[in-house]
Amino acid sequence: MSKTVVYEVEVMFGDCDPAGIVFYPNFSKWMDASSLNFFRQCGVPPWRELIRTRGIVGTPLLEVRSRFFHPASYGDRLRVRTHVSEWRAKVFTQQHVIYRDDRVLCEGSETRAFVVHPPGEPDRIQAIPVPADIRALCCDA
Amino acid sequence: MSKTVVYEVEVMFGDCDPAGIVFYPNFSKWMDASSLNFFRQCGVPPWRELIRTRGIVGTPLLEVRSRFFHPASYGDRLRVRTHVSEWRAKVFTQQHVIYRDDRVLCEGSETRAFVVHPPGEPDRIQAIPVPADIRALCCDA
Amino acid sequence: MSKTVVYEVEVMFGDCDPAGIVFYPNFSKWMDASSLNFFRQCGVPPWRELIRTRGIVGTPLLEVRSRFFHPASYGDRLRVRTHVSEWRAKVFTQQHVIYRDDRVLCEGSETRAFVVHPPGEPDRIQAIPVPADIRALCCDA
Amino acid sequence: MSKTVVYEVEVMFGDCDPAGIVFYPNFSKWMDASSLNFFRQCGVPPWRELIRTRGIVGTPLLEVRSRFFHPASYGDRLRVRTHVSEWRAKVFTQQHVIYRDDRVLCEGSETRAFVVHPPGEPDRIQAIPVPADIRALCCDA
Repeated sequence: MSKTVVYEVEVMFGDCDPAGIVFYPNFSKWMDASSLNFFRQCGVPPWRELIRTRGIVGTPLLEVRSRFFHPASYGDRLRVRTHVSEWRAKVFTQQHVIYRDDRVLCEGSETRAFVVHPPGEPDRIQAIPVPADIRALCCDA
Repeated sequence: MSKTVVYEVEVMFGDCDPAGIVFYPNFSKWMDASSLNFFRQCGVPPWRELIRTRGIVGTPLLEVRSRFFHPASYGDRLRVRTHVSEWRAKVFTQQHVIYRDDRVLCEGSETRAFVVHPPGEPDRIQAIPVPADIRALCCDA
Repeated sequence: MSKTVVYEVEVMFGDCDPAGIVFYPNFSKWMDASSLNFFRQCGVPPWRELIRTRGIVGTPLLEVRSRFFHPASYGDRLRVRTHVSEWRAKVFTQQHVIYRDDRVLCEGSETRAFVVHPPGEPDRIQAIPVPADIRALCCDA
Repeated sequence: MSKTVVYEVEVMFGDCDPAGIVFYPNFSKWMDASSLNFFRQCGVPPWRELIRTRGIVGTPLLEVRSRFFHPASYGDRLRVRTHVSEWRAKVFTQQHVIYRDDRVLCEGSETRAFVVHPPGEPDRIQAIPVPADIRALCCDA
């Protein structure tokens, strides 16, 4: 079973658009931040360390699906609840649910892969199998 | 049949992350920009005008689904091809395909609604039926 | 004497650029957020309330001067210490000092004005004298 | 004499805040983009190439001073005129003036340095003397 980790956000004025509500790509930003925070809280070292020790550059996105139920505005305090809903050989899916108090504002499901730079090609990236030790860190004992 | 409109983007250094590739919420930003650009190119007035004349605040997102095939980096010139793939009573879906030269880097499908502020509630928004005249402007003659 | 208010930031992966360090406009974003947070913590209502009660739209920037001493990277926890260093008739200056632990990473000085929309011109803004009651809230008793 | 290079921007809806005007850190973003575009148009290779051939990671900011005269809003087309106003031993200053048609909206002056990563320290950066060949590329014949 995947752990669940909560990431907190306070919406800034500049996160909002002329309609006075959060400009939606900022929800993507917070899901991305919560994705990384999930790994950090599970005990996975930061990418800058993994790139040195194992060549892992990060976990870029392959697919995302999000639904938006209620808008948010500046001053709101949001919680992003994140867990891994599926592990496959080379990809995994994280589920993010964003709350203000007890109300779900939006939810998103991101499919990602661990990637490395192919030898000698620092501008390209390549998926590797999900590392078993990282997966183990993300699961309840 | 929906018109198709192309929006052009040149990727900035600051659009990219420590892996050297576009930070994915920026693709959402460009899809959002292309969504609005689509309406403008079809002859729909800007929201700041529609809010005065008809109370329409914009077209916030209800649902988005995107898939990412290849990364982009700074200096790349991208084209976002946008059309409306479905009109329903109160919502519509726009399809965005992002190219670098002839290669598809990602594609996204956004479901949106036209919204107004309910009377006396400037912080809330409410969907209205898709205006027939706006829909007509977006279709080929 | 002006109060001093601290705003906290945790740097996200996506706040950093291909050099692995914070993309500098994000420091501007955090100073802007800390500017508003300062007023909120001093007891000034949010703009969305002030626009209704007094027509005040916000405090746009007239001038900014920032110096950068050390870079930051993702995972860093930063503190922005903000106070008002000068009140004049129609403008005021906020000083922001950004720390990681005890090290000053950058400091910025923003000159702003309280603005309203001129009657009938929702796309224009106009400076008003600094409201005396707001100024009083921002000072130590 | 420094060359002058123009960078063009079309303001997006999402670049604007609840007051309906450009959120000011976006002006910083465009100045940063214009800074890099200046070097590219002068014939300087992109950082991703310079880091391989000469270890140069980029030109991070040491100091910025900007003044804002008029706001901009979405749909506006802006031009950023950029030149180098001063070259010193280890730093240089770029001047950016942002226009909408013939009206100056804001101007900024950025002081930057060319930096490398010190040997074995990929998370730190260090200024080097302004490379003479790069400086020559940026000046009129």
